Amino acid sequence: MVDDRTARVALTWLAEPGNLPVWSLVEECGAEATLARLLRGDVPDKSLRAAALAKAAALDPRRLADLTLRRADRLGARIVVPSDDEWPSRVESLATLTLEGTTRVHRDTRPPLCFWVRGARPLGETLERSVAVVGARAATPYGLHATNEIAYGLAEQGWTVVSGGAFGIDAAAHRAAMAAEGRTVAVLACGVDRPYPQGNSAMFDRIAETGLLISEWPPGAEPLKHRFLIRNRVIAAATVGTVLVEAAARSGAIQTMGRVLALGRVAMVVPGPITSAMSVGCHELLRSRPDTTLVTGLSNVLETVGQIGEYPVDVPRGPDHARDTLDEESALILEAVPRRGAITPEELAVRAGLPVRTVLRRLSLLELTGLVEQRETGVALRPTS
Amino acid sequence: MVDDRTARVALTWLAEPGNLPVWSLVEECGAEATLARLLRGDVPDKSLRAAALAKAAALDPRRLADLTLRRADRLGARIVVPSDDEWPSRVESLATLTLEGTTRVHRDTRPPLCFWVRGARPLGETLERSVAVVGARAATPYGLHATNEIAYGLAEQGWTVVSGGAFGIDAAAHRAAMAAEGRTVAVLACGVDRPYPQGNSAMFDRIAETGLLISEWPPGAEPLKHRFLIRNRVIAAATVGTVLVEAAARSGAIQTMGRVLALGRVAMVVPGPITSAMSVGCHELLRSRPDTTLVTGLSNVLETVGQIGEYPVDVPRGPDHARDTLDEESALILEAVPRRGAITPEELAVRAGLPVRTVLRRLSLLELTGLVEQRETGVALRPTS
Repeated sequence: MVDDRTARVALTWLAEPGNLPVWSLVEECGAEATLARLLRGDVPDKSLRAAALAKAAALDPRRLADLTLRRADRLGARIVVPSDDEWPSRVESLATLTLEGTTRVHRDTRPPLCFWVRGARPLGETLERSVAVVGARAATPYGLHATNEIAYGLAEQGWTVVSGGAFGIDAAAHRAAMAAEGRTVAVLACGVDRPYPQGNSAMFDRIAETGLLISEWPPGAEPLKHRFLIRNRVIAAATVGTVLVEAAARSGAIQTMGRVLALGRVAMVVPGPITSAMSVGCHELLRSRPDTTLVTGLSNVLETVGQIGEYPVDVPRGPDHARDTLDEESALILEAVPRRGAITPEELAVRAGLPVRTVLRRLSLLELTGLVEQRETGVALRPTS
Repeated sequence: MVDDRTARVALTWLAEPGNLPVWSLVEECGAEATLARLLRGDVPDKSLRAAALAKAAALDPRRLADLTLRRADRLGARIVVPSDDEWPSRVESLATLTLEGTTRVHRDTRPPLCFWVRGARPLGETLERSVAVVGARAATPYGLHATNEIAYGLAEQGWTVVSGGAFGIDAAAHRAAMAAEGRTVAVLACGVDRPYPQGNSAMFDRIAETGLLISEWPPGAEPLKHRFLIRNRVIAAATVGTVLVEAAARSGAIQTMGRVLALGRVAMVVPGPITSAMSVGCHELLRSRPDTTLVTGLSNVLETVGQIGEYPVDVPRGPDHARDTLDEESALILEAVPRRGAITPEELAVRAGLPVRTVLRRLSLLELTGLVEQRETGVALRPTS
């Protein structure tokens, strides 16, 4: 026999995460007994039985689980199961999620059996106060600006920023949270040892150092297309609410929002120009789902996810430019950057009358919002700003 | 004694339009008897009694009404009262409008006693199928683009476009409707002989020729500030629905939308960039009033105001540029404009393979959307497009 942990790893290999019959069996008789039943073909669901037996014939799942656990250990990844203290209990609400639709993606939305985790922080605590910020890969400068403002601010206020690690809005959300020296969690649809897309690998390494990379799939797992759709339910379930920044019509991020709404979590949507293809999905969602909340920036998001009254509501001002959204320190620093040429952070600190540490911290925000850029000679105003 | 028409003119002079006690008396005993009672101080409302007697002492209201009617006749303006066939019956719903708030602007929202009208079309019929398009004076190019698309399309589909004649969104709505050779009505807060603002006077003359200029105030009346707030209830009540395109926080257009919602009319709001001060009011309204409808363009508006199923719903495409929203004929014409230099409409017709009449008609849309411009030598591409 194998223990609960090993059994869960083996089960995740025999059937994709979220599988309804597997999860029901585990609920009924535990992971070890479920694995034993699958291995002797003693399960009512025909297609699950056939698939599991075929896979088990190719490679003993218990042996595979052992190998995977040892491999993960070498990679610095750990496995987290429901009996662990750091299990993120909020994902258990997937147990009762019901979606309209008859495909497997609609049916197989049960809670994860386990999480693979890279990063030092405890998983449950990190996700306790978390907000997802998701959106289009083909994000526009407008969407990236909105993401920066919201994710930076959330992280600064102590919220963990959760996203999917993709190009565009997802990556901007992770980066902004790290720029604020806050916490961020990337929920992957592949192994935590080979996070996808590779183009973001430097970012993933930084996330593993300061936040968490998590996945339901074992190390080595490929980012197959359908896995993103399975993964999305975790982003929806693990967080207090989700902010959709930009999305084309019928995009993957819209699918995530469907799960957010079905779970009764807060579904926040950033509107945009009606002339932008990347806001079509956002507007469609706002029109079709009255239970979504239109948010115009950080203060709306904090107001929505926070305890009522915990955050004072800003009187709407509607700034026209990125610089108008700056806090006082950032504005002082921006003011101190010379019109031409570059300046070192140390000189900048003197000019702005602020500690160097503060200047360095704020510069990352200014860089993210596209107002300044780092050059070899120091910090300079961006030509367009 | 005076007749009903003259009495209503006199009453509008003795008290501002919408006045609750005056309207109630007229409902009770008719306009002639109400005037007689006001002139002998026989009204329960103290402040109304004092104001009316003071005004009547300065100038006999019956004589003023006579003079005004004759003056209007000379100016080509007519007066329309509820007993006329062309009375726009929809404004009568103001009889039961209740608003939160205790100021006179909140109380004095009763139906008009009469309308002064410049323009040949019958008033009631013109307003029967009408939509208001309103918004900020300090409109952005984005707002003007959205207004052009919506107002042009509404007019082309046979809807009358109603607005307030102001700079910005209002003027763009009137102009776009006229460019589509459709009907437009400007609801003024001053006399129809001196429409405000003067900067739009050429536009007002064109509206009087092709559509209608209407006002509750007699010729010669000044556009006093509070009159715009009184006027707004007519824009809300006379139309099937109102589209708010751009609005700063707490603007006059937002006040109009409050009346639209209180009357149970369709309140449509165009979202915009969260970074634009001119969309702050729109987003605020969408957030605070779940009974508003977010609209992303003409097809959403038609779908909302039209009979269900009367207009097929477009699959959202989210065009990125003004040119992507063009109909086929306009696209052909734009294609035929040379990259450098100008071309006459006649040459353009030959190149595009379309009748000159069609080219002239479509050129006005292309000009409004900023894609082409009229020069002395003919039509040319706009440098920025």
